[in-house]
Amino acid sequence: MKNRFCFFIVVLSSLIFTRLGLGSYEPEWESLDKREVPDWWTDAKFGIFIHWGPYSVPAFTKVGQYAEWYWKDLKSPGRKAHEEVLGFHNDFYGASFTYHDFVPKFTTELFDPDEWAQLFSDSGAKYVVLTSKHHDGYCLWPSDEADRSWGRPWNSLATGPRRDLLGELTASVREAELRMGIYYSLYEWYNPLYVSDVDLYVEKHMIPQFKDVVSRYAPSVIFSDGEWEHSDKTWRSEELLAWVYNESPRNEEIVVNDRWGKGSRHTHGGYHTTEYTSGVGETSDPWEESRGMGYSYGFNRAEAIGDYKTSREFIYMLVDIVSRGGNFLLNIGPTADGRIPVIMQQRLMDIGEWLDVNGEAIYDTKPWLVSCQWSEGERPIEKRGEYMVEYDILKLTVEPDDGVAYKEIWFTQKDDVLYCIMPRYSDGKMFVEDLTVEPDCQITLLGMKEPLEWTQADHGLEVDLPVMNPNSKPSKYAWTLKIDGLSL
Amino acid sequence: MKNRFCFFIVVLSSLIFTRLGLGSYEPEWESLDKREVPDWWTDAKFGIFIHWGPYSVPAFTKVGQYAEWYWKDLKSPGRKAHEEVLGFHNDFYGASFTYHDFVPKFTTELFDPDEWAQLFSDSGAKYVVLTSKHHDGYCLWPSDEADRSWGRPWNSLATGPRRDLLGELTASVREAELRMGIYYSLYEWYNPLYVSDVDLYVEKHMIPQFKDVVSRYAPSVIFSDGEWEHSDKTWRSEELLAWVYNESPRNEEIVVNDRWGKGSRHTHGGYHTTEYTSGVGETSDPWEESRGMGYSYGFNRAEAIGDYKTSREFIYMLVDIVSRGGNFLLNIGPTADGRIPVIMQQRLMDIGEWLDVNGEAIYDTKPWLVSCQWSEGERPIEKRGEYMVEYDILKLTVEPDDGVAYKEIWFTQKDDVLYCIMPRYSDGKMFVEDLTVEPDCQITLLGMKEPLEWTQADHGLEVDLPVMNPNSKPSKYAWTLKIDGLSL
Amino acid sequence: MKNRFCFFIVVLSSLIFTRLGLGSYEPEWESLDKREVPDWWTDAKFGIFIHWGPYSVPAFTKVGQYAEWYWKDLKSPGRKAHEEVLGFHNDFYGASFTYHDFVPKFTTELFDPDEWAQLFSDSGAKYVVLTSKHHDGYCLWPSDEADRSWGRPWNSLATGPRRDLLGELTASVREAELRMGIYYSLYEWYNPLYVSDVDLYVEKHMIPQFKDVVSRYAPSVIFSDGEWEHSDKTWRSEELLAWVYNESPRNEEIVVNDRWGKGSRHTHGGYHTTEYTSGVGETSDPWEESRGMGYSYGFNRAEAIGDYKTSREFIYMLVDIVSRGGNFLLNIGPTADGRIPVIMQQRLMDIGEWLDVNGEAIYDTKPWLVSCQWSEGERPIEKRGEYMVEYDILKLTVEPDDGVAYKEIWFTQKDDVLYCIMPRYSDGKMFVEDLTVEPDCQITLLGMKEPLEWTQADHGLEVDLPVMNPNSKPSKYAWTLKIDGLSL
Amino acid sequence: MKNRFCFFIVVLSSLIFTRLGLGSYEPEWESLDKREVPDWWTDAKFGIFIHWGPYSVPAFTKVGQYAEWYWKDLKSPGRKAHEEVLGFHNDFYGASFTYHDFVPKFTTELFDPDEWAQLFSDSGAKYVVLTSKHHDGYCLWPSDEADRSWGRPWNSLATGPRRDLLGELTASVREAELRMGIYYSLYEWYNPLYVSDVDLYVEKHMIPQFKDVVSRYAPSVIFSDGEWEHSDKTWRSEELLAWVYNESPRNEEIVVNDRWGKGSRHTHGGYHTTEYTSGVGETSDPWEESRGMGYSYGFNRAEAIGDYKTSREFIYMLVDIVSRGGNFLLNIGPTADGRIPVIMQQRLMDIGEWLDVNGEAIYDTKPWLVSCQWSEGERPIEKRGEYMVEYDILKLTVEPDDGVAYKEIWFTQKDDVLYCIMPRYSDGKMFVEDLTVEPDCQITLLGMKEPLEWTQADHGLEVDLPVMNPNSKPSKYAWTLKIDGLSL
Repeated sequence: MKNRFCFFIVVLSSLIFTRLGLGSYEPEWESLDKREVPDWWTDAKFGIFIHWGPYSVPAFTKVGQYAEWYWKDLKSPGRKAHEEVLGFHNDFYGASFTYHDFVPKFTTELFDPDEWAQLFSDSGAKYVVLTSKHHDGYCLWPSDEADRSWGRPWNSLATGPRRDLLGELTASVREAELRMGIYYSLYEWYNPLYVSDVDLYVEKHMIPQFKDVVSRYAPSVIFSDGEWEHSDKTWRSEELLAWVYNESPRNEEIVVNDRWGKGSRHTHGGYHTTEYTSGVGETSDPWEESRGMGYSYGFNRAEAIGDYKTSREFIYMLVDIVSRGGNFLLNIGPTADGRIPVIMQQRLMDIGEWLDVNGEAIYDTKPWLVSCQWSEGERPIEKRGEYMVEYDILKLTVEPDDGVAYKEIWFTQKDDVLYCIMPRYSDGKMFVEDLTVEPDCQITLLGMKEPLEWTQADHGLEVDLPVMNPNSKPSKYAWTLKIDGLSL
Repeated sequence: MKNRFCFFIVVLSSLIFTRLGLGSYEPEWESLDKREVPDWWTDAKFGIFIHWGPYSVPAFTKVGQYAEWYWKDLKSPGRKAHEEVLGFHNDFYGASFTYHDFVPKFTTELFDPDEWAQLFSDSGAKYVVLTSKHHDGYCLWPSDEADRSWGRPWNSLATGPRRDLLGELTASVREAELRMGIYYSLYEWYNPLYVSDVDLYVEKHMIPQFKDVVSRYAPSVIFSDGEWEHSDKTWRSEELLAWVYNESPRNEEIVVNDRWGKGSRHTHGGYHTTEYTSGVGETSDPWEESRGMGYSYGFNRAEAIGDYKTSREFIYMLVDIVSRGGNFLLNIGPTADGRIPVIMQQRLMDIGEWLDVNGEAIYDTKPWLVSCQWSEGERPIEKRGEYMVEYDILKLTVEPDDGVAYKEIWFTQKDDVLYCIMPRYSDGKMFVEDLTVEPDCQITLLGMKEPLEWTQADHGLEVDLPVMNPNSKPSKYAWTLKIDGLSL
Repeated sequence: MKNRFCFFIVVLSSLIFTRLGLGSYEPEWESLDKREVPDWWTDAKFGIFIHWGPYSVPAFTKVGQYAEWYWKDLKSPGRKAHEEVLGFHNDFYGASFTYHDFVPKFTTELFDPDEWAQLFSDSGAKYVVLTSKHHDGYCLWPSDEADRSWGRPWNSLATGPRRDLLGELTASVREAELRMGIYYSLYEWYNPLYVSDVDLYVEKHMIPQFKDVVSRYAPSVIFSDGEWEHSDKTWRSEELLAWVYNESPRNEEIVVNDRWGKGSRHTHGGYHTTEYTSGVGETSDPWEESRGMGYSYGFNRAEAIGDYKTSREFIYMLVDIVSRGGNFLLNIGPTADGRIPVIMQQRLMDIGEWLDVNGEAIYDTKPWLVSCQWSEGERPIEKRGEYMVEYDILKLTVEPDDGVAYKEIWFTQKDDVLYCIMPRYSDGKMFVEDLTVEPDCQITLLGMKEPLEWTQADHGLEVDLPVMNPNSKPSKYAWTLKIDGLSL
Repeated sequence: MKNRFCFFIVVLSSLIFTRLGLGSYEPEWESLDKREVPDWWTDAKFGIFIHWGPYSVPAFTKVGQYAEWYWKDLKSPGRKAHEEVLGFHNDFYGASFTYHDFVPKFTTELFDPDEWAQLFSDSGAKYVVLTSKHHDGYCLWPSDEADRSWGRPWNSLATGPRRDLLGELTASVREAELRMGIYYSLYEWYNPLYVSDVDLYVEKHMIPQFKDVVSRYAPSVIFSDGEWEHSDKTWRSEELLAWVYNESPRNEEIVVNDRWGKGSRHTHGGYHTTEYTSGVGETSDPWEESRGMGYSYGFNRAEAIGDYKTSREFIYMLVDIVSRGGNFLLNIGPTADGRIPVIMQQRLMDIGEWLDVNGEAIYDTKPWLVSCQWSEGERPIEKRGEYMVEYDILKLTVEPDDGVAYKEIWFTQKDDVLYCIMPRYSDGKMFVEDLTVEPDCQITLLGMKEPLEWTQADHGLEVDLPVMNPNSKPSKYAWTLKIDGLSL
């Protein structure tokens, strides 16, 4: 019944939009860039990124590098991981073992999409983005174009898993009421057409393939990538996006990123992307920081516990990003047999536990006037502004600085409610600088019922924090004051 | 220099013991059972158990069962995991794929014994026990007997890993200054000699093989197993143990367990063993509880995060066991490629972090008069007494019981120092019932320098606990009061 | 209907024999050796030997050696083929590839037992002997004993082919109205029981296994082998043969050879065996020469055309053997995928074509007074007398000795008919020394209708041979005079 | 010394030809078609064709079809072998096993190019043509274009054999003093460029690849194929051939065939090709018939002895073809492990043995006035004239027609010598119709020294054939009268 109703709404909306000429974009940046990123996405804040493919079989690179680049690293002297990957490959698989020989070992026999979707739901994420195709060109759905232009079955239904991995996960994720998106690489390192003639590649391979995957699975997010070797004219990105915005099956809801040609990042398309950085500085544009749990997106067997960020770090990253208006797309690298490494499950469960209590301060919020209040005047935001710079907020906060009063807070806002998220909790007082609230302001700690005492001082607000047994605190790693009654 | 000196001592000791006739045991239980378990072992408290072999390739069983029993489960209708294992096997490997075909896939290419040893050292464990041979008969060292009696290379040097896994790990563990032990299965499910004639098996296979492994690697611990199908007479265990105690290379230091024949557990041999239980109740005999981090010893890919015990749980288990005089042998299941799953690394690191602060209350201690003080009069110890009963102390403590004053403590003792290990920390007072201390008693919280205030009351001792920022607390999960000045 | 009738006869015969005490042998050589080899076998003259098993996968040895000994050659420094086999194995499969790993590659996907049987029938052979089990212990039928005593599935139904190869071939061979036999190795190089305790091996493994294969498939021939390491007492061969003669399902018809213990060849059991020799010299005992088509029984990929005997050579061998009272068991080595190499098919077809015309001079015959008449007084028979000497009759005949009148003939006899088989055919006269015939004697050339002219001379018989177009001669390689009217 | 001299001659010739402008062809058929096929080739008469590649791994098709078309047959419903190939593939390899997965199994471990070359030399062949690349696009030499345009290593040095098969065989064949040629397929069924844009394929892949293989190995023959889907304009064949004739390294000597575009067979390029036919009828153009030894070029495991032509048949084919001015390119299909099946070795050795005696009547000859003299007025040549008609001469001759005088002869001529090649030999007279010779004419039987008696009759020549022992005849299958003294 519900489905029918939805269907009705969708059809109706389409009619309306079509009639009104809404959703009618020209294949030019001037027109395309006017489109707003839909609210559901800026409200969602937290998504799961998944890098999974034949590279999940060797699942190996030099620690600090990307395991999904195995093939490229294997073949390219000069790349940072080349020596390690080549040595490993030759020692263990042998020089005559080609990248393609990994495909039959990409078995996914333990892949249970419902279990994955449940985990993602438990983590508090609101959307999921799977690599429909990475730079190796291997497709996780039955793409005819892939098979044709690679001269062999080069998709997960015809080879290896013998399953439509994207289709299965899409169904399960939607069943769990999360939104489903795809990562899609424009270029393919060794695609025969690409290496011979990029225009032919775009015409015969990329455009029909892109439309196929979008039409079939109707993703809510398209995370484009691999755009940097050619201009958006070569990729015909404007044409593609006009099609996406005007005609693709979920065109009202769909969100795209900014990787559509050399120089297009932070300039054209949808939200801005950063990776393994502290994100974007002062901007009102939507943006998203993505990163793996260790140093790699694709599962890297060489990463040990010391290479994984902690749950605490991920929670701080999420809060910091959200306080500055961004989304956090946290990546997991499943194994070739279809499991999510248990350490990654744990990280997701820990985040989910934290969001169970504090999610109110994350979802559907906006940045406040300032993103944080930091001790010693060192506001981490001032260190940002460039992307592709290693994230360092964690260095500021993880070491408790005992004996010195601290007052670190990240802020988020929803209407006249201010959320103050504190990475250190002291059984004492918290002082929020330069804040004035309404007299009937109610202040609580998320996860506790009793309102807290507070005092409006000249230069800010002082709140009494309750003394709490560490076991009884409503959450771990960070705690949120909800101040309901901002003077707007 | 140091090594030479040690060598001198060893030689000297040997001479002395030989002359004095010490270490001269008769091959009869009456004589053998008189031998005391050496102090190093009862002082060590915490060891790492490792189950690793060809079963680490499928690494699969029904959740709740033992993955190292894959072969047996595959072949034996009626066993609890039979249906799941058979179905999985046939679906994924095919019915013609035999257990032996797993051996070439037991590759261990990422095995770095120094890294393992470092991790074990970091975990605070004092000894390591590796499956030199499990019930499948496959040996992790180059055993001639294995090859001969299986009619094919059936060891890790000649097949699969092409490495002496036991030898390599032994060297690294000793380099890290931990003690090294072996698990050794007396029976072998499908050993051709065993299934034809157990006496011939014992004579031609087991006894020479056992002596070979002990002579080569000079283990400090022998964890015997697979004893239940035959009497100790059939296994000729008395003869074997007399050899171990009198003649084996590390015979002064060596510790053995109690699995030497049908009915020998908790009766004959060395320390008592339990597994996946709350251990042994009231006893002054040495004992050891072993268990995996999930439900299996061998790595089980089917176990997800919900199947793994938490670091907190392991720390409580360790403390509870030590408080009652036992050792805790915590098992890890490495992967076929030679890694310790990162989730297991994390558990070990967490325990190690806790022991860094609180190890003083664990190592070299003895049980106090009572093992714990429990709220509501429910002392978990009262629930024990049988082994092979699922551990349930965790259910008592993990849920914070807010609003109610609690007073849970585990106790350990070292001379006139009493350690009170508290799973819940309140910024307030702790009351230790029925305890009287000397007037000059010093009480501290391990990890903090300042002595605490205390008051001797009639029916016990009251200690003021400091208010602490949760981030600045010296450890997680449990905290230790050190009371130096017991009235003995 | 036919089957029922046969059944009736069988049952009736059994009853009669049992009542009369016929077929009742004692388990002692004195009794056993009295049994005559059944006539069907001495009349059959020509059989097909088949060596097929996991060794057919590498199918490799030094030219001149036996490929079915691959495993032994691989492991035994000092054996003639050791260096070649080891080098090949390590280079191509790798040192960690065990003999057992060949089993999954023993696929037999192209094995069509009906086609094989048709070929055997076309070749003129009257019986077939398949290696039910060679020295590697691997069984071509589902032997429980094999699996048990090797600690793994070690038969063709449970592994590799996943077929009952012996059962399938037996059915097809019988359908083609040939008799079916088995080769069975008493010893097994690396059988765990054998290497530990030969008595246990015989008791638990060999005897039940032997009875199982004989009971299941009711072979007409048992070609025992691998007897030389132990006495017939150890093998309990007398007991086994008494069972075979008295109780096995085809006990009236069954034929066994002479390999039943150290020193038993040419002494005890059934027919005498030789291999790769010119057979047995002057004897009235039944005997059989076996050999491969090249230098190996098992298929050896290293053998090239120069290593294969020609069809002409095989026909001469057959005739020579039969002229001296023996049988010829010509071996083929099928491939791992279940084909008979085409070159072997051709040899068999050529022999069959020859027998189509000349079979009358072979089947059901007996040796004549002399086996042959040889030019220059060099009767090859005089060179024989020892077995295990390389066959050299071929060297005498293959080179035509033009310009010199020749008169080579092999003789066979059937009642008052003498067959003169001539390896060289001249369009002229043939002189048979010392032969006197009846006046009404009829002489023909097999394959032609017209009787030939002849003249009785003092010292022999002179026959006029017809001038013939080489294309029109009734057969190739050798031609037979049928002299019907011997003076007996 | 010899080599230096040759080198000198080559250099000198190049200079001369270059100066004279010889060898300067325009890229137009009008110019190209004027080039004569070099004499060495028309004199050579007999060559060996080799089809070898990844298809040699499955080595399977329906009997009567081409095994080298496995991939195409697998994928194309409607093709004659589709059902069989698909069924076999799915049953035995499984549906997820791709054609590419055969490559690692294309091992060639037993490939010894010197042995092959020796065999070819022994067979009497004068040139060898190896599939440098068949329609699957897989190259037997290290072709960069192949790897690039297939997006993966797709040559024998980088994968599978890990050897430059073409290079190795070329060296050995030349060492054996035979000429070396290549087969090269213009089209590639599934080449990504080909299926996307044939012009791009030709430009980026085919032309540079063709020039690479010709430049590297300097073949004496180019057997082009796979031309039929496009015109010679599309393939740019004129341009290619102008390069071959003007600039390629062995341009004076090189011979090409007639497969350069839709409709080009028997019209443009070099010699005319036929396959599995009786060749070309009345023509003075050079032509070549090629065929396998059974029904397939690539090794087909499904072919049994009945599917192989006999040595006799091949000798008759060779003679018949040569008598009509053609060449015979007899194909062998090596196995994936690098062997030439022994049955094929035998055929080649038999032909070589025949040519040892009769080669004089084959090499360097021309057709005579008539190609043959056939009994009953049925000259097989009259049945020809169309190509792609199954060869049937064999049916006419293999059955001896006894009682009827026969007079079948094939003729070849060299200056004033006439060779009469007789498939049937009778110890009597041979009559050559309508032949007049010089009075001093000498007539011999090749392989015998003594001249034969002859009589010139009105309507022909009568020759007395010697009576010969079949074993002493100089050759098998066909015999040659050499008539030295034709009246020209």
